[in-house]
Amino acid sequence: MATLKDIEVAAAMNILTAFAFLVAFAFLRLQPINDRVYFPKWYLKGLRNSPLGAGAFVGKFVNLDFRSYVRFLNWMPAALQMPEPELINHAGLDSAVYLRIYLVGLKIFVPIAFLGFAVMVPVNWTNGTLEHSTLEYSDIDKLSISNIPIGSNRFWTHLVMAYAFTFWTCYVLKKEYEIVASMRLHFLASEQRRPDQFTVLVRNVPPDPDESVNELVEHFFLVNHPEHYLTYQVVYNANKLSDLVKEKKKLRNWLDFYQLKYSRNQSTRPLTKTGFLGLCGERVDAIDLYTSKIEGLSEAIASERDKITNNPKSIMPAAFVSFKARWGAAVCAQTQQSRNPTIWLTEWAPEPCDVYWDNLAIPYVSLTIRRLIVAVAFFFLTIFFMIPITFVQSLANIEGIEKALPFLRPIIELKSVKSLIQGFLPGISLKIFLIFLPSILMHMSKFEGFISISALERRSATRYYIFQFINVFLGSIITGAAFQQLHEFMNQSANDIPKTIGVSIPMKATFFITYIMVDGWAGVAGEILRLKPLVIFHLKNFFLVKTEKDREEAMDPGSLGFNTGEPQIQLYFLLGLVYAVVTPVLLPFIIVFFGLAYMVYRHQIINVYNQEYESAAAFWPDVHGRIIVALIVSQLLLMGLLSTKEAARSTPLLIALPVLTIWFHRFCKGRYEPAFVRYPLQEAMMKDTLERAREPNLNLKGFLQNAYIHPVFKKGDDSESDAASEDSDQGSNLVPTKRQSRRGTPFPSKRSGSSSSLLPEAVQEH
Amino acid sequence: MATLKDIEVAAAMNILTAFAFLVAFAFLRLQPINDRVYFPKWYLKGLRNSPLGAGAFVGKFVNLDFRSYVRFLNWMPAALQMPEPELINHAGLDSAVYLRIYLVGLKIFVPIAFLGFAVMVPVNWTNGTLEHSTLEYSDIDKLSISNIPIGSNRFWTHLVMAYAFTFWTCYVLKKEYEIVASMRLHFLASEQRRPDQFTVLVRNVPPDPDESVNELVEHFFLVNHPEHYLTYQVVYNANKLSDLVKEKKKLRNWLDFYQLKYSRNQSTRPLTKTGFLGLCGERVDAIDLYTSKIEGLSEAIASERDKITNNPKSIMPAAFVSFKARWGAAVCAQTQQSRNPTIWLTEWAPEPCDVYWDNLAIPYVSLTIRRLIVAVAFFFLTIFFMIPITFVQSLANIEGIEKALPFLRPIIELKSVKSLIQGFLPGISLKIFLIFLPSILMHMSKFEGFISISALERRSATRYYIFQFINVFLGSIITGAAFQQLHEFMNQSANDIPKTIGVSIPMKATFFITYIMVDGWAGVAGEILRLKPLVIFHLKNFFLVKTEKDREEAMDPGSLGFNTGEPQIQLYFLLGLVYAVVTPVLLPFIIVFFGLAYMVYRHQIINVYNQEYESAAAFWPDVHGRIIVALIVSQLLLMGLLSTKEAARSTPLLIALPVLTIWFHRFCKGRYEPAFVRYPLQEAMMKDTLERAREPNLNLKGFLQNAYIHPVFKKGDDSESDAASEDSDQGSNLVPTKRQSRRGTPFPSKRSGSSSSLLPEAVQEH
Repeated sequence: MATLKDIEVAAAMNILTAFAFLVAFAFLRLQPINDRVYFPKWYLKGLRNSPLGAGAFVGKFVNLDFRSYVRFLNWMPAALQMPEPELINHAGLDSAVYLRIYLVGLKIFVPIAFLGFAVMVPVNWTNGTLEHSTLEYSDIDKLSISNIPIGSNRFWTHLVMAYAFTFWTCYVLKKEYEIVASMRLHFLASEQRRPDQFTVLVRNVPPDPDESVNELVEHFFLVNHPEHYLTYQVVYNANKLSDLVKEKKKLRNWLDFYQLKYSRNQSTRPLTKTGFLGLCGERVDAIDLYTSKIEGLSEAIASERDKITNNPKSIMPAAFVSFKARWGAAVCAQTQQSRNPTIWLTEWAPEPCDVYWDNLAIPYVSLTIRRLIVAVAFFFLTIFFMIPITFVQSLANIEGIEKALPFLRPIIELKSVKSLIQGFLPGISLKIFLIFLPSILMHMSKFEGFISISALERRSATRYYIFQFINVFLGSIITGAAFQQLHEFMNQSANDIPKTIGVSIPMKATFFITYIMVDGWAGVAGEILRLKPLVIFHLKNFFLVKTEKDREEAMDPGSLGFNTGEPQIQLYFLLGLVYAVVTPVLLPFIIVFFGLAYMVYRHQIINVYNQEYESAAAFWPDVHGRIIVALIVSQLLLMGLLSTKEAARSTPLLIALPVLTIWFHRFCKGRYEPAFVRYPLQEAMMKDTLERAREPNLNLKGFLQNAYIHPVFKKGDDSESDAASEDSDQGSNLVPTKRQSRRGTPFPSKRSGSSSSLLPEAVQEH
Repeated sequence: MATLKDIEVAAAMNILTAFAFLVAFAFLRLQPINDRVYFPKWYLKGLRNSPLGAGAFVGKFVNLDFRSYVRFLNWMPAALQMPEPELINHAGLDSAVYLRIYLVGLKIFVPIAFLGFAVMVPVNWTNGTLEHSTLEYSDIDKLSISNIPIGSNRFWTHLVMAYAFTFWTCYVLKKEYEIVASMRLHFLASEQRRPDQFTVLVRNVPPDPDESVNELVEHFFLVNHPEHYLTYQVVYNANKLSDLVKEKKKLRNWLDFYQLKYSRNQSTRPLTKTGFLGLCGERVDAIDLYTSKIEGLSEAIASERDKITNNPKSIMPAAFVSFKARWGAAVCAQTQQSRNPTIWLTEWAPEPCDVYWDNLAIPYVSLTIRRLIVAVAFFFLTIFFMIPITFVQSLANIEGIEKALPFLRPIIELKSVKSLIQGFLPGISLKIFLIFLPSILMHMSKFEGFISISALERRSATRYYIFQFINVFLGSIITGAAFQQLHEFMNQSANDIPKTIGVSIPMKATFFITYIMVDGWAGVAGEILRLKPLVIFHLKNFFLVKTEKDREEAMDPGSLGFNTGEPQIQLYFLLGLVYAVVTPVLLPFIIVFFGLAYMVYRHQIINVYNQEYESAAAFWPDVHGRIIVALIVSQLLLMGLLSTKEAARSTPLLIALPVLTIWFHRFCKGRYEPAFVRYPLQEAMMKDTLERAREPNLNLKGFLQNAYIHPVFKKGDDSESDAASEDSDQGSNLVPTKRQSRRGTPFPSKRSGSSSSLLPEAVQEH
């Protein structure tokens, strides 16, 4: 077991690493050449066009102003300075609320840590159980609950503290839920007019032999929402087209690369090979090759575009239906339309850039089957993920490599290389798996059929949390793979499970302290350095960039990554709550993590990240729910731990805690969750009335006309079909009484005034 | 253990009892004097005024037509003759769908029984395990799974059968859910106009210092549903008034009794004592006494009525808000109104006679706390109910009685009496508890704050089912009180619990067969005899009845009693599904129960029961869910049983069953449940359009004006306030811009044209 000394060494090492990262960051960010890596947000918002304070030629690349190096840590106060309303305005509500998660961590754990150190550390310390025992123990263990003799009356302190901590956590959670809910409602009701406030996504439009989807949608809503219906946009199956556009973009990058190469060295035209990855095949002129390839692709794109707009089969049985007022949209989104609850499904349209277009046309039965498949697959992934990895590990041994690649044998047989490989190989397949885990989970969510990116990320976050809970938290405490745990749990009584885990908890405190320092401290400090985007930006800048626009594209601001970030934070909540009563010494480490992460991410959100979508903090119920889960887990484990300490009289008192916590959760769910899933009619009506009074002549139809067009159509050739959009302008209020085919109508693709700058750039065609 | 012989004897005895009940019924129902006991439904519907075929004076009391005795069993085909649509029209959808539960039982178990007898009985019978063992066994056990040797390959039959039974059950359930859902939608969309189709119940109207509840409600809905809002009715706190009215009714009964006595014997005026129960105190003239008492009470009622209508404090913060069309009501009922989800709560108004008036004004926070209290109370009731009963039993022993009532000693000390008391006493407190259990559960539901009688009954049914599952089903299998079970389960592993129960299941088959015959067969046959209503009717008829109206009131048609009846049926589903694979011999007994009960209840519904309310089969999701629970329990127990039989290879295959069943449940929930909780807008619009076309001049306001008035006001003096209702007629579309008090407005109590004849008579004042 680690002693205090070991912890000190580890802490020193990690603090040094973190500090090195921070210093490197402080230095690099001051160089004008890195300005687009560390401040891309400002460029994207159009608030900055060139590095600040650029003077002479050298000054464009290296910062020569030595005074700025003196103030190299001033990004920290700067990050904290921007007030929250400005932050919401600058980076969106999602980001601002995401930062509040760290704040909640601080709000919960700072008072708990103070109380813990004031009350429990002395109570634990002034015992001699461990000294008189023959057990190995560390100084940290002397501060923990292990140091209290069995059956001691001192356990009452822990019991009272468990109550105090629970009440404090619930109080903070309730306050925070209240604040976030009102922030969300305020944000939704804020002055900005957004297309998703007026629009409802309709899925599973039933097939009809006589009418096209367009006609069906129009008729249905004109009949059932006669006073409110405004217009609709059908959804085209443009997945193939968007693949082609992506391909074209990639080819254009290569063309740019060779053109740049040629312009720098005009003596020889750059050559390339036509084969696999340019490694083999005939040598041809690269510029000509890519120009012709792009031309071919452009034609393919044009014909695919034609096909989509003219072929009724490429219209998916889904549509975005817009209403004259928010009230009408709120009504339609929150009610059932048809007798059959599996057709004409309506829900709030996600924000245009939040839509996940591929999933819009999955029928209901298929959805439920997919859900079953994913649930089973995730169960097996979580419980049995170690089995294939162990199998790969057993294959990837030195003998296997020597057999497969015999020419490597002389090198491998070297003693130092051999031991390196032997130490390295078994871990590598696990490491690779863990790196790919978030994207595996993301693919699962995509397969499950969620229709917005935010929902995909939320679901992936839930799964990632469960995976971490079982394989990191439980896996570290009762060392063993998940399927072994499962087997053990199945054969243990309900009483014994919390006991088994509870008993091992105090002993794992030092392990988790090290984990927090490596994963939390150094990891967060590494985040601010942005090493990977830094390298990629400079490579792109050197090889591809010709114009300012190219440079803009070379920036990779990234985004928050809710699906990986939030479960990580939740692990710290879990550790903090579990150890608050057992080993309060762990708390300061968690507090440092929360504080540092808050500052770093606040800086990143202000200066770097460019959020892809805006879900108006729709994730908060998940965050709240998982903290509640952590709280209940901590209570159960404490119950298990205390029952082995023969403090049996206190156990019945502890049973009340989870009951009260669950009740608190249900109360919060009823009280605050509706703000995240429903839109009150009063709000809608207020906003509508205000808008009508201010802008009586607003052309809402024009505003909404093209808001929900598949991004590949968004920046298409303007020449294509101005007439078409006018046609559908007039057409949408007429209900043809005869069932006639209008499938010849060309698709309207007039550029919309509301086209958002937040669109994923990868799918924008230039 | 019981042998086949024992079962035969028990069966014969119970068949005889049931047969005796049926014969008694067949005889009694033919007597004209009992006509109102056995055919009250026809009287209440106004389709019959006097017994059929009444001739001479004697013929009014006794049926002298001997031919009718020959056909004494012809009620059975008669009960089955009425086609379902007519039944719905005659007795309501609730009753018709309730009967379908029995049909579902037949549909599930008849094919399962055939398959079971064809396949599994031979498979089980042709083994010799029990013959060669030293265990005591009966012939029934030879037909069960116990007769198969450990580790035999024959268990594959049981596995395949478990799959077949599960699929068949799910198929029947899905079909049935589909039918019931479409019946419900058809019923809701049927031609009849009902006030609840246009009305929404608003609760938790927030207090406002400047405006009364009336004004608040009117303003809110005029602002937020301007195009749809029609009118509203506030809810008065009339609980005290309705108590007074009940009291008056009781006194009037006594007065009638004495007047009748006096009219029969004019020589002496009847006397009574003024003290407790008329047993002690001064002797006075009974008629004068009750006349004066009733006069006093009438005054109190009048003043209380005045107080309610004039005092704004008696207006509860709740209201029934009506809309111009079903569409508007559907929208309002299914959306959130205010930013704060705990105020302005809207939901579909229950049918007027389904409203539980006492609970309309409970605030949100109080509701959540009540729910917690009831949940905890129910947990303790279920788990620890044996403790107080055991305590009472220990007090109520013979020595205790002798001490308390020493004069009884000589009688008690008689040997025969003593043994009788000793055998009788311990059971009596348990019996009393079980008789009162449904009303205890009903009070719990009332305390929890449900606002409709149907919801109260549904919740009570759920609780009663849980209680029966734990204390009857599990309690019989692993003999022991619930808290002992709980203790055992907590100390057993998750694997062992199904094993423990699974192993005991085959051994309890004979017990449950007896249970089915006593509780099911004889119980159902007793139901049709209606012994208690028969006696009470004749007593009332003799002592109280003066006029035809009195005689009408003396009838007690009763109603289905969903809260006790449905959980009983569910117990049979559970038994049938659990034993289908284990001991298929049990199935015929269950089939007989379902068949007999179907016939009896169909007869009762047609001729006797008068359903208090109509919830349009809102209970079906509960019924479906509980059958699913039974299915999953049966699968888990089979898994436990097979794993002890060392048929381990089959266990993993069994795990798929509950997973698929749960998935099936979720699928059904998504596919059919919305029909029971939501009202599709398309339906509403269709109905509205149709109605507008047919009756363009319909005065909907007049129709809705007084539909939701507290029943005590319903049949008040007509003279009271005709002007008032006109006043509110005009007022409801004006929004006073100044905040002025209109509290003086008298309450409108004009008799509504829609006043339903289904009103609980106890609260109707005459």
